[in-house]
Parts: sequence; structure tokens; C-alpha cells
Amino acid sequence: MMSEESSDFEIWKQIGDERQPVSDQVAREEPLQITVDGTPVAVVMRTPGHDDDLVRGFLLTEGLVSSLSDVSRIDLEDKQNHAYVFLADDIVLDHARLSRNLFSASSCGICGKASIEAIQQNAPPIKNDFAISADVVLGLPDALRAAQEVFSNTGGLHAAALVSAEGEILILREDVGRHNAIDKVIGWASENRLDLSQTLIQVSGRVSFEVIQKALVARISIVSAISAPSSLAVEFARESNQTLIGFLRPPKFNIYSNPERIV
Amino acid sequence: MMSEESSDFEIWKQIGDERQPVSDQVAREEPLQITVDGTPVAVVMRTPGHDDDLVRGFLLTEGLVSSLSDVSRIDLEDKQNHAYVFLADDIVLDHARLSRNLFSASSCGICGKASIEAIQQNAPPIKNDFAISADVVLGLPDALRAAQEVFSNTGGLHAAALVSAEGEILILREDVGRHNAIDKVIGWASENRLDLSQTLIQVSGRVSFEVIQKALVARISIVSAISAPSSLAVEFARESNQTLIGFLRPPKFNIYSNPERIV
Repeated sequence: MMSEESSDFEIWKQIGDERQPVSDQVAREEPLQITVDGTPVAVVMRTPGHDDDLVRGFLLTEGLVSSLSDVSRIDLEDKQNHAYVFLADDIVLDHARLSRNLFSASSCGICGKASIEAIQQNAPPIKNDFAISADVVLGLPDALRAAQEVFSNTGGLHAAALVSAEGEILILREDVGRHNAIDKVIGWASENRLDLSQTLIQVSGRVSFEVIQKALVARISIVSAISAPSSLAVEFARESNQTLIGFLRPPKFNIYSNPERIV
Repeated sequence: MMSEESSDFEIWKQIGDERQPVSDQVAREEPLQITVDGTPVAVVMRTPGHDDDLVRGFLLTEGLVSSLSDVSRIDLEDKQNHAYVFLADDIVLDHARLSRNLFSASSCGICGKASIEAIQQNAPPIKNDFAISADVVLGLPDALRAAQEVFSNTGGLHAAALVSAEGEILILREDVGRHNAIDKVIGWASENRLDLSQTLIQVSGRVSFEVIQKALVARISIVSAISAPSSLAVEFARESNQTLIGFLRPPKFNIYSNPERIV
């Protein structure tokens, strides 16, 4: 099932000042819409595969059913990323118990492309010539680590930072939630009227669809991460004309899209 | 603001066969309920601090407002984890655009304790004498890594595994989403009528509130993680009589609750 869990992309590997195109495997991320007795209850961003187990576990651990005997059937439509759950005859879904990870239910057949297009209706692709040097990028992990030491000793926080073209950390925030750290720096920057189009956002962990979404809405053209991106993050960055850097581990990093902004 | 971002806990540090009580700093996690013009729109699990920036960023990047000029005022009630947003006179909230990280809005003043109690109404604390040896725990990172290599080369996937008292990996799943990997193993185990009360769940990353929640609903009594837990995860595990292991990095690990299950 390896092909289901990862996708191949043509990317660029930067080592110091050298850059070369390589082929790379990226973990797949696709939305799965879960519909229970005809009502769409959630869209989960997941790696395809074992979707039936995912749906069963989701229904149980989110408290939507109290045991699998409440579930009569699960129909999967792989191509369309839909799971249709049918409850047993005497079981009625308690919507109030659904708590987490809702995504607005798309009315059309849902797919990664539809998710990207839905976002882009309100946030068009980025067109700017903001650029940053590979040297500055390679210095970011050390700069971030130094800045983070001021904040906490827990080892349990995600970090997000906005960085200028010169490599200055304009703002850094930490949070147990990766998205919260991103929201905190974007919220601060917006309140302080910083021109986000002239910044790179550096994040401590991985890059999912939602990280690119938040950066696009904020008009940030370069997203850089210490760890791996998902397939949907790469596709989204390419569609949105954003530069996506991953596996930033000096003296190396990967460029997944729009390498012209790294000079 | 360091005290706001972390809490001190008395925990146990295990090194090989030795165990000693120590004091440890844990990153704080608390819910923040965001209410816009009187309507609760989301509960975000976050690290307290810079909540005004978080709310601004959340409203912007989730597309709830198109610019901060749409926001007239944000009132924070720190003690109660509430943020009250008031939009400008001519702006009406478009609920359909709210997409992610909803949590069912609690009707009472929300706090970590309320979140735990809400879950425990449907999933009472665990009472069992399942135990596992420290040696088995110390072997889990290697066992997991070996099992993961079979699955992917992307470096971008979270893993979750169910482990028997003897250290056998009963099931392992990987996903871009940490919660999905957990749902997949719990869904598989439920479908295959595995007795989850006799298993430990090992996860690759950090432990948030929601990881403990999912384990509790599935009646799993031991949760073990390679990285850090949040404060709310520790508090939840203690209230629910679950054993929580973190920073599992042989020959060491931390025990945050109910150490009697590690023998």
C-alpha cells in the first residue's frame, strides 16, 4: 500500500549554494468526508488507506457511537474521498457530541483539488518577487532555537516565526498547537500592520494543507519547515505560487515549489 | 510570561530500572472559547498567552473576517478562557466560512477541568491492573522504528501502535494526522474485538488533551509518547487513572501519572 500513502514529486535539493532537481516521496494528505445516515458530519484531513478503520475509530473516540454494534455499514468511495456510514435501525446520531476537526462540508465530490479551489476563491495565488538568500534560510534553525530558549523549557511547544529578507526574526510565538503558533504571529503582524508579503514564515514541525492555507490567506509567499510537508501542502503551494521549503537541516534543505524566491 | 506558558508537575523519572520523583515543567494547554457577536464559534486548545493575537490570526486565517478593520473589539476573560469578539457595525459573521478546529461549545465557563469532566461523563476513569515492564517500554522506540520503515520513506507521518504487555506490536498505523493514526488503530482493534484494556498505545509525537481523550474512550490505560505531553494531558490522565509516559528516549523516560502500571 506504499503508493497509497505517499506520492512522488519532482523537487529541488539545496546543499549550501548548490541546487539540483531530485525526485522525492511525500506523505499523502487528502480530505475524507464522513457522512452518517445522509448527514455530512466531518471532513478529516488524512493519509488515504485503512479508511474503514479510521471511520470506525473516529466514530468511537469522538463519542458519535458507543460501540461498533451501532454501525450497520460503512461504504467507501475511494476516488471521491467519501465514507458513508449507516447506523443500526434503532440508533440516532447525536450531533451535539461531535466535537472536533470539523471542516465545512463541501457540496461537491471532495478532493484535494476541490479543497484548494475552495480556499483560493477567497485567497487568490500570490504574485510577488519577494526573495531570500539560501544562506539566510540555512541560518534559521539556529536563530529559532536561540529565540525559543528564552520562552520555555518544556520541549512541548510548536514554534512559528516571521522572518525578514535579511533573516531577522520579527516575531516568534510558541504553542502546544501548531496552528495556534501560526495564528499568533499572523495576528500580531496584522495588528502591527507588518507587510506580510515581505516575510517568510518558519515553522518548527511539519507542513500540512492548513499551514499553507493560513499562509496564503495572510499573503505570505515563503513557508519554511524543519520537517516534512504533506502532498496536499506541496500541491497547494504550487497552485498558489508559494515557495515551500521542507526538511530544513543545515547545510541542506528541500524546495518543493517556486524555487526562484530562494537566491 | 514563562509561568503562563508552562506548569510545574511532580513526576517520576525512570532511568533503566531506577525511578525517582522529580519536578518537571510541562507546556500548558487550555481551551479558549471564541465568541463572535454573541455566538460561540470555536473552542481552540491552545497555550495561554497572546490570546488577542491568536484570536485576530484565527479570525483572519479561517476567513471569518477579511481584515482587522472588520473587528471592533476583543474582550478577553483570562480566568475563564473566553474571548469575546465584537465586529464592526456593518459586518455580519458568515458562519459557513468557519471550517476547522471546532469544539462543541460548552455552556458553562470553559476551563481545562470542565473539558475533562465533559469527556468523563461518557467515559469514566479507568480501573484495571494492566501493567507492563519498564524494559518493554524502553524497547518500544526501536520496535516502532523497525515497523515504520516497512511503511514509508517520507518522514512525514505520525505513527500510533497498540502494544501487548509482552511488547508485541499488535497493530501500527501511520498518517499525516496524529489523531487519525490513533483512530485507525482503535478502529482496527474494535473491529477485531481486541481487548483494548490490555494494551498500551504508543504514539510518535506529543500528547495533547485529545490523545488522552481518545485513549480513555477506547479504555486504554497506558499512553506512551516519544515527545512531551501538555499540562491538560497530564491532568486528564491523572483524573482518569491512566498511566502517561512521555519523552521516551532510552534508557530514560518520564512517568506523569499512575506509575504503578510500570513494573
